[in-house]
Amino acid sequence: MLYFIIDILGIIAFAISGVLVAMDKRLDLFGIFIIAFVTSVGGGTLRDILIGNTPVTWMQEEIYMIVIAVTVLFAILFAKHLHHLRKTLLLFDSIGIGLFTLLGIEKGLTAELSPIMCIALGTITACFGGVIRDILCNEIPVIFRRKEIYATACILGGSSYFLLILLPFDGAYAYIASILIVIVARLLAVRFHLTLPNIYGTRENEA
Amino acid sequence: MLYFIIDILGIIAFAISGVLVAMDKRLDLFGIFIIAFVTSVGGGTLRDILIGNTPVTWMQEEIYMIVIAVTVLFAILFAKHLHHLRKTLLLFDSIGIGLFTLLGIEKGLTAELSPIMCIALGTITACFGGVIRDILCNEIPVIFRRKEIYATACILGGSSYFLLILLPFDGAYAYIASILIVIVARLLAVRFHLTLPNIYGTRENEA
Amino acid sequence: MLYFIIDILGIIAFAISGVLVAMDKRLDLFGIFIIAFVTSVGGGTLRDILIGNTPVTWMQEEIYMIVIAVTVLFAILFAKHLHHLRKTLLLFDSIGIGLFTLLGIEKGLTAELSPIMCIALGTITACFGGVIRDILCNEIPVIFRRKEIYATACILGGSSYFLLILLPFDGAYAYIASILIVIVARLLAVRFHLTLPNIYGTRENEA
Repeated sequence: MLYFIIDILGIIAFAISGVLVAMDKRLDLFGIFIIAFVTSVGGGTLRDILIGNTPVTWMQEEIYMIVIAVTVLFAILFAKHLHHLRKTLLLFDSIGIGLFTLLGIEKGLTAELSPIMCIALGTITACFGGVIRDILCNEIPVIFRRKEIYATACILGGSSYFLLILLPFDGAYAYIASILIVIVARLLAVRFHLTLPNIYGTRENEA
Repeated sequence: MLYFIIDILGIIAFAISGVLVAMDKRLDLFGIFIIAFVTSVGGGTLRDILIGNTPVTWMQEEIYMIVIAVTVLFAILFAKHLHHLRKTLLLFDSIGIGLFTLLGIEKGLTAELSPIMCIALGTITACFGGVIRDILCNEIPVIFRRKEIYATACILGGSSYFLLILLPFDGAYAYIASILIVIVARLLAVRFHLTLPNIYGTRENEA
Repeated sequence: MLYFIIDILGIIAFAISGVLVAMDKRLDLFGIFIIAFVTSVGGGTLRDILIGNTPVTWMQEEIYMIVIAVTVLFAILFAKHLHHLRKTLLLFDSIGIGLFTLLGIEKGLTAELSPIMCIALGTITACFGGVIRDILCNEIPVIFRRKEIYATACILGGSSYFLLILLPFDGAYAYIASILIVIVARLLAVRFHLTLPNIYGTRENEA
C-alpha cells in the first residue's frame, strides 16, 4: 500500500514535469497528455520492452492512465501556480526516481539479469521517461547535459542495493535504504549544485 | 479482400506523406524510403512491440515493403504533381487512420486488454507512424500541435466501437461503423478547422 | 574468436563515433556514455526488439558495457588526438558494419524471416545505432542525408549473401565474402565519394 502511494506520487510528479515542458512548447491538449504520459511511464515501458515483459505494465493497469489524465487536467488549470510547488515537485520527483530505480532492479532480478544490468534497468526505469519527453519535444535530453546529477543518483542507489543485500539484514531494509539513498543523493545534488566532473575546461562555463 | 485494399490505400497515403516530409528535409533516397516506411508501418510496429506481438507484422508480410518501395518511387517521380492530389491523399489518409484504429483495437482485444487500452492501442497504430516520422525529421510531432483534430478522431471512433458492440447487432457492423466515424470525424475536422480547445489564451493565435 | 575480436573492434569504433558526436554537443559524462552506448548497441537492440529476442543481447553480455565504458574513458582522455586516427576509425567502422550486417541476417534466419527481411534486419543492426545517436543529439540522422553510401553498402553485402549461398560452396565462405563486400563497398564509397543518385536537381548542390 505504501509502495502504491509512493508510486502514484512519482507518477504525478513526472506527469506535471511533462505538462510543464509540453506547455512551454505550446502543444495542444492531446500533445500535453502524451508528453505527460511518456514522462511518467516511458522509462518503465522501455524497461519492459528491453526485457520482453509485454504487454507493458501501463497497459495492464488502468490506474496509471487515469492518474495521469487527472494530473494533466489539474496541472493545466493551475499551471500559473505550479512554480509555487517547485520544492514539493522536486521532492515528489526525487521520491519517484528512488522508487522507480528499485522497481526496475526488482524486474531485472526477476529476469535473472546480473547486478550491473539490474542497475542499468533501474536507471532506465527512473530516467528514460524524461529522455523520451525531451526527444518528443525536440530537445537534447536534459539529463545528458551538465546539470545537477540525476541518473548518477539512481546508479548510486542501485549499486548500494547490491552492497546492502550482502549485509545480514532482511532484504526489505536494503530495498528501502537504497530508495532513500537515491532520494537523498538527488536532493543534495540540487541543494549543493553537484554535477559530474566538467571535462571541457573552464571556458565552457561561459557558453 | 476489401480490408486488404483499404489497408494498402492507407499504407500508400502514409508513405506519400512520409515522402513529402522527407523531400522537404532534402533527405537522400535511402532517407526518403525509411521515412516513408516508418510513417506507414511505424504505428503498427510500436503497437506490436508494446503488446509483444513479435516478429512485428511488417517483417512477416513482404507486401508492405514492396508497396512502400513502389509508392516512394512514384511519389519522387511525380512529386511536383502531388499537390493536385491533396484531396485524394486526405481521403486515403482518413481511410487509413480509420482502418488502422480498428485494426489496433482488434489486436488489443486479442491481447485481452481493457477497452481503454484497446482504444489507446488503436490510436497508437493510427497516429504514431507520423510521430516517429516527425522525430526522425527533427520536428515536434505535428499531431501534438494545434491543428485540426487527428488523434481525437481515432479516440472518438475507437470509443464508438465499444458502445456500438453493446447494441444487438452483428459485431462487424460496429467495426465498419467505427471506421466510418473516424473517417467522417477527420474529414469534418479538416473541412471546418475543428481543433481541440485552445488552453493558451487569445494572443496565442497570433504566434 | 575471430568474430569476437571483430565484434569488439566494431563496438569500439561505434562508441568512439558516439563520443565525438556527444562531445560536439557538449554533453556531460553520463550523456557521453549513453550516446556511445546507443551508437554501439542501439542497432542490435532495435533488431532484438523487432524480432522479440529479449532480454536484448547487451543485457546478457556484460562485455559490451565494459568495453564501451573503457572506450569512452580513453576517447575523452585522448579526444584531441582522435582526428589522427580518422583512417583507423573508418576502417574499424567499416569492419563493424560488415560484421553487424551479417550478424543481423543470422538472427533473421534464426527467426525464420524471408531473405528481404533478413537483409533489412542486418541493415538495421549495422546502421540504426547511429540513427538513435543522432536522434538523441537532436540531429536528422546523418545516414538519411546525402553523404557517401553507408546503409546501401549493408544492403549490397546482405543481398550478396543470399546470392552466394546459392553457389556450391560452404556457407561460411558466403558469410565472410559478404562481410568483405560491405567493408569494401563502404571504403570505396568514402574514397571515391560515391553517393546515391541526387533527386533534387543541380542547384541543390549549392545548398
